[in-house]
Amino acid sequence: MTTRPDTPLLDTVNVPADLRKLEQSQLRQLSDELRAEMIDAVGTTGGHLGSGLGVVELTAAIHYVFNTPEDKLVWDVGHQCYPHKILTGRRERIRTLRQGGGLSGFTKRAESEYDPFGAAHSSTSISAALGFAMANKMQGRKGRGIAVIGDGAMSAGMAYEAMNNAEQAGNRLVVILNDNDMSIAPPVGGLSAYLARMVSSSEYLGLRSMASRLAKKLGRRVWGGLEKAEEYTRGMVTGGTLFEELGFYYVGPIDGHNLDHLIPVLENVRDSEQGPVLIHVVTQKGKGYAPAENSADKYHGVAKFDVVTGEQKKSSGGPPAYQNVFGETLAKLADSDPRICAITAAMPSGTGVDKFAKAHPDKAFDVGIAEQHGVTFAAGLAAEGMRPFAAIYSTFLQRAYDQVVHDVAIQNLPVRFAIDRAGLVGADGCTHAGSFDITYLATLPNMVVMAAADEAELAHMTYTAAEYDDGPIAFRYPRGSGTGVEIPEQLEKLEIGKGRIVREGSKVAILSLGARLEEAKKAADQLEAKGLSTTVADMRFAKPLDTDLIEKLMRSHEVVVTVEEGAIGGLGAHVLTFASDEGLTDGGLKVRTMRLPDVFQDHDDPMKQYDEAGLNAPQIVDKVLSALRHNSAGVEEARA
Amino acid sequence: MTTRPDTPLLDTVNVPADLRKLEQSQLRQLSDELRAEMIDAVGTTGGHLGSGLGVVELTAAIHYVFNTPEDKLVWDVGHQCYPHKILTGRRERIRTLRQGGGLSGFTKRAESEYDPFGAAHSSTSISAALGFAMANKMQGRKGRGIAVIGDGAMSAGMAYEAMNNAEQAGNRLVVILNDNDMSIAPPVGGLSAYLARMVSSSEYLGLRSMASRLAKKLGRRVWGGLEKAEEYTRGMVTGGTLFEELGFYYVGPIDGHNLDHLIPVLENVRDSEQGPVLIHVVTQKGKGYAPAENSADKYHGVAKFDVVTGEQKKSSGGPPAYQNVFGETLAKLADSDPRICAITAAMPSGTGVDKFAKAHPDKAFDVGIAEQHGVTFAAGLAAEGMRPFAAIYSTFLQRAYDQVVHDVAIQNLPVRFAIDRAGLVGADGCTHAGSFDITYLATLPNMVVMAAADEAELAHMTYTAAEYDDGPIAFRYPRGSGTGVEIPEQLEKLEIGKGRIVREGSKVAILSLGARLEEAKKAADQLEAKGLSTTVADMRFAKPLDTDLIEKLMRSHEVVVTVEEGAIGGLGAHVLTFASDEGLTDGGLKVRTMRLPDVFQDHDDPMKQYDEAGLNAPQIVDKVLSALRHNSAGVEEARA
Repeated sequence: MTTRPDTPLLDTVNVPADLRKLEQSQLRQLSDELRAEMIDAVGTTGGHLGSGLGVVELTAAIHYVFNTPEDKLVWDVGHQCYPHKILTGRRERIRTLRQGGGLSGFTKRAESEYDPFGAAHSSTSISAALGFAMANKMQGRKGRGIAVIGDGAMSAGMAYEAMNNAEQAGNRLVVILNDNDMSIAPPVGGLSAYLARMVSSSEYLGLRSMASRLAKKLGRRVWGGLEKAEEYTRGMVTGGTLFEELGFYYVGPIDGHNLDHLIPVLENVRDSEQGPVLIHVVTQKGKGYAPAENSADKYHGVAKFDVVTGEQKKSSGGPPAYQNVFGETLAKLADSDPRICAITAAMPSGTGVDKFAKAHPDKAFDVGIAEQHGVTFAAGLAAEGMRPFAAIYSTFLQRAYDQVVHDVAIQNLPVRFAIDRAGLVGADGCTHAGSFDITYLATLPNMVVMAAADEAELAHMTYTAAEYDDGPIAFRYPRGSGTGVEIPEQLEKLEIGKGRIVREGSKVAILSLGARLEEAKKAADQLEAKGLSTTVADMRFAKPLDTDLIEKLMRSHEVVVTVEEGAIGGLGAHVLTFASDEGLTDGGLKVRTMRLPDVFQDHDDPMKQYDEAGLNAPQIVDKVLSALRHNSAGVEEARA
Repeated sequence: MTTRPDTPLLDTVNVPADLRKLEQSQLRQLSDELRAEMIDAVGTTGGHLGSGLGVVELTAAIHYVFNTPEDKLVWDVGHQCYPHKILTGRRERIRTLRQGGGLSGFTKRAESEYDPFGAAHSSTSISAALGFAMANKMQGRKGRGIAVIGDGAMSAGMAYEAMNNAEQAGNRLVVILNDNDMSIAPPVGGLSAYLARMVSSSEYLGLRSMASRLAKKLGRRVWGGLEKAEEYTRGMVTGGTLFEELGFYYVGPIDGHNLDHLIPVLENVRDSEQGPVLIHVVTQKGKGYAPAENSADKYHGVAKFDVVTGEQKKSSGGPPAYQNVFGETLAKLADSDPRICAITAAMPSGTGVDKFAKAHPDKAFDVGIAEQHGVTFAAGLAAEGMRPFAAIYSTFLQRAYDQVVHDVAIQNLPVRFAIDRAGLVGADGCTHAGSFDITYLATLPNMVVMAAADEAELAHMTYTAAEYDDGPIAFRYPRGSGTGVEIPEQLEKLEIGKGRIVREGSKVAILSLGARLEEAKKAADQLEAKGLSTTVADMRFAKPLDTDLIEKLMRSHEVVVTVEEGAIGGLGAHVLTFASDEGLTDGGLKVRTMRLPDVFQDHDDPMKQYDEAGLNAPQIVDKVLSALRHNSAGVEEARA
C-alpha cells in the first residue's frame, strides 16, 4: 500500500460550508490536495478517473461560490463526481467507491443531500436542474438549478430539448458546459466541431474586457474590483450564438483549471439578475495526472492502478469479452457481405464496434450520444437494402424505445440490435443494468429476441441476425468475459424460434434463456444427485417461443422452471402465457419462473448480485425442490 | 353530397412522372386543383387538413424537381401527406383516408414505393433520410434522402441528433424545414423564437441576389438564366447560423406558396455538389381554405365537414372525453393543492392540460415535442416537492422510456403519469395505439400502474395519484368518450394495489383491467344466461397486483380469465407469474389471458378493432366456454 497523500487543508473541509470559510487564494492548494486524494482513492478502487480529474477546480469553485445544497447542483452522467463526493461529507467512504455496500460511482440521492438528482445516463442534467429551478420559483423559495454537462453529453437530443425550454427559468438556471473535447470516445458531429471552432477562434481578453462584455450582456454593472486579478489572469468571452439563439446568456470560453478566472465568473453569474446563463468552461480530461493526460481515453474508466506509475492491474487474460466476440465476428462477416454496417452511440470500444470499424471504417457509424437518431438511421439504412447492426447497451436502448417501436417494428425493417450489458452489470449498478429489454422488446409484434448462453452462441447469433432479412432481430449478451468455450470457425445459422436441449431428463425441466445456462447446468447436476432427473434447455429465443419444445417438455415433466437475466414480463411471462393459452397447465403441471427481482439492485460483484437476485444454481435447486414439495395435497413428494 | 371539383390538369397526373411532363407555368393551376381535391376529400373523410393545405405547392414542387421515388422523400409525421398521396398513384383511394381498409392518414411503406418511410410520430425524418442517403452512398447508387420537417418537429431532440450527424451525407441529404410557426398547438421554446426572428428580420432580396449568395455558399456557379424570374418574384436568403453551425448549407427563408421561388431553389439544390442543404420554407397552415386559415388550430385535425361553409360534423354530445375529465379534475384538485402542476409535450388540448392551464396558467408547462425533457423535468419538479403530472399519450411516452426508468423509477420520484390513448385508438392506426405501456411500465420496480374502467374511475385515479407521494404512479385511460357514468363530487382515494369486485359469482372469474370492464360485464351476463355463475373484478392496478383478491378468486373459481387493452407482458403475465410463483395453478386451475394480439393492427373503427383483437364480450364468452370444455380429461363440462 502506498502512503496516503498529505492533505492538511483538505482535512479541514468536511462539507462545502467549511470550504467557504477559506480564502479564495487557498483554493489552489485545496484543489491540488483534492486531486491527490482522488488519484489515491481511485488507485485503490478503480473507477472513473479522467473525468473527475478534469473538474477538480470546477468542483471546488462551484461549492465555494454557490450555496449548495440549497442551490441544486446536478452533475451530468455523474462519473465526474468523485471530487464532489470528497467535498460533500463522503471523504471517509471514498475508498469504498463502486464496491459492494460502498459509495456509488455516480451521484445518488440516497447518499447525500448534496446529490439532489442521481445520474449515470447522459444528458439529463439540464432538464432536472430546470425542474429544481421552476419548483423553487413556484414555491417562492430560493434555490437555483445548476447543471454541469460535458460537450459529449450535449450531443444528445435531450439536452437540446431542455435548452429549448430553459428561458422561463431566468437567473435560477445555470448551465456549465464542461468542454473537454471528449466524451468517452473522441467527439463526433456538428456541435462538437462548432465548439472546437469557438474555442480555437476565441479572443483572449483581459478580465476587465470580459467584465465589460458580461456586464453588457447581463444588463447591469458587475465585476467590481477585479483590476488586480487582471494582472495575472486572462479570460475569454466570445459570441456563442448557438446558445444565445436558444435563449441563453453565454459566457466563455473560460479556462476551467484557473481558479482566478472561474471564481469571479461564477460569482458574477450568481449575482446576476439575468439568465439563464451558459458558462462555457474548457477543461482537460485527466488533468494533473501524467499517465491520464497522456492516455488516449484520458483514463476514462480504470482498474485499480499504481499511483506512481499509473499502471493498471491487468485482468488475468482468460476468455474474450463478449463485446469483442461480437465486434470481431461482425467484422469477419462483413468481409464477404458488403451490406453489413454497424452503428454505435458513442461507445465504440464498449460495444466492440471499434473492432469492426478497424476493418470496415466506411461501414461504421458513431452517431454520438444519440440512440434515438442511431436507431432510426439504422431503420433508414435497412429500408434501403443494408444490413445494419445497432450495437447499443440494453440500458441505453431504452433511450430509443419509441424508435424501436415506431420506426423499426411497425415497419418490420430488418435492423439488427446487438444488445450488450444484458442482465446485471456489477460495479456500475442499477442505472446500467440491462434488466428490461426482453420484456420491452418481446412485447412488440414482428420482433425476434435472442439471448446468448455463451460466446460461441453470440457468434452464431451475430451470423443468424446478419442473414435474417424478414424483420427486426435482437440478441442480448452479458457484460464481461465469456465462458471460455471455443468459437467454431464455421458459424451456424440458427433456426428462428427454436431452442436446443442441452441435457435430457424426465422429471424436472429447466428452460434457460441467456447466460444463466451454466448455473442451470450446475443446478441440474445437483438435482440429479438428489435423484431428480433433469432436462436443461437453452431456449435461445424469447420470441418467437419454441412452442413445440415447451409443449413437449411440459407434457413430459412434472416441474418446469424458466430462468432468465431479466425482469418480469420476459421469457417466464411468455412461457406462462403460451402454456395457459393452450391449457397445458390445466392438468396440474407445476411451472415456476425465475427472473430478476422487483427491486433496483445496488452495485456489487456480479456473482453476488446474481446471488442476491436468486438466480444462481443453489436457488434454482431450491425452486425446484419447493415446487415438488408443494403439491395440491400438501404432501412432500421429493426429499433430498 | 357536393359535386367534386373540376380538375382537368390534375386528371392527367397519376404519378410524379406525369407531373414532370408539365410546363413549370402549369404548376400553379395544378396546385390549385390539388388543393381543391384535397379539401373535397377530407370533407368526406375527416382527417388532417391544415397541414396538407400548407404544403400543396411544396409537394408539387418537390416531385417536379426531384426524381422520386429514386430520391427518397420522407415526410415528417406524415399528416401533411394527403397531397403527396394524390400525386403518387393514390388519388382513386383518397376518399378512403383513415377508414377501415382504406388509405392510412400517414405515410406507409406498404402503400406505395413513394412512401419509403412511414411516420406518424414526429421528428424521425432527418434520421431516416440520412439512412437512405448513406445506404445509397455505400452501395454506389443514386438517390438522395429528402426530409420535410415542420418547425414544431424541430423542437424534438431527435431532429437535433440527426442534424448533428448530417454532414457526412454531403449533397445526398436535403432537409426542408417547413416553417408554419405551428405545431398542433402554438409553438414553444427557444428554437421557435429563433426561427421567428429569422423570418421577421430577413432581408427580402431579388432572385439574382439570392442566386449569388447561394452560389457563394455552395461554392459553384448556379442560378443561370433567372433574370426574368426576378422580374416578378422576390426571394430571401439570410444567415441561418444555427443550422450552419451544425454543418448545413442554409437557404431561406423562402415563400413556400410561391412556385416561382420554390422550383428554382429546389433545382439549384438538386444540382449542387455541396451539402447537406437545409431549405427554410415559410408556409401557412390551412392555406387556401378560408375556414382553416381563420381557425386557431388551422383545422389541424377535423371531422367530416361541409366544404362550402367549413362547418364540421358535430359529435352527438354524450359523455365527456376522458382527456377533459382528467384536465378538469386536475384543475379542481389544484385549487386547493399548490403543489400540483402539469406537463404536456405539445398536446395541450389532446391531453386536457389546456383545461388545467386555463385555471392554473403558472403551473402548466408545454415543453414542445420533447417527451424526454418533459419527464426528467417532471422528475426535477418532484424531487423539489411539487406534485407533477406528466400527461402524455401512451404511444408518445415510449419516447421517454429511459427517462421513466432512469430518472423517475430508479430514484423512486413521485411523478404522476397521466397516460391518454391507452389501447386501440381507431383512425390513427397502429402508430398511435397505446398497446405497450402496461408491459413496459409494470416491469419496473417502484412503479404503480393503474387503468381506469370509466371516467369516474379516472377522476378517482387522478385524485389518488395526486395524493400518492411514495414514488411514481401511472394511470391509463382510453381515447374518446367515457361511458356516461356520473362523476362523484367527492373523489375517492383508492387503496394502492386493491381491485374491486363488480359482480359476484362462483364458477368463472373475469379479471378486467381498464375500459374492457363493460365488455366483461356483458360477457358475464351472457355466461350467467348459460348457467355459469360469473364474478367480475375490476383490478384497477396492474402493479402492485391485488394478490389477495387474485388468490381468493383463484381458490374459489374454476376458470379465471384476465382481460386488458394491452399487449403481452401486462396484467395477464403478472397474474400468471404470481399464480405460478405461489403454486395456485398447480392444482389444475384454468387460467386464460386475453390481450391485444401480436400484430400491429390497421386503423379502423375502434369497436371493430377490438373485435379483430378478440376483446369484446362474445370473445370473452368464447374464451371461458372453450376453457371449460378443455379439461385434462377432454370432457366437455359446460354446455350452453
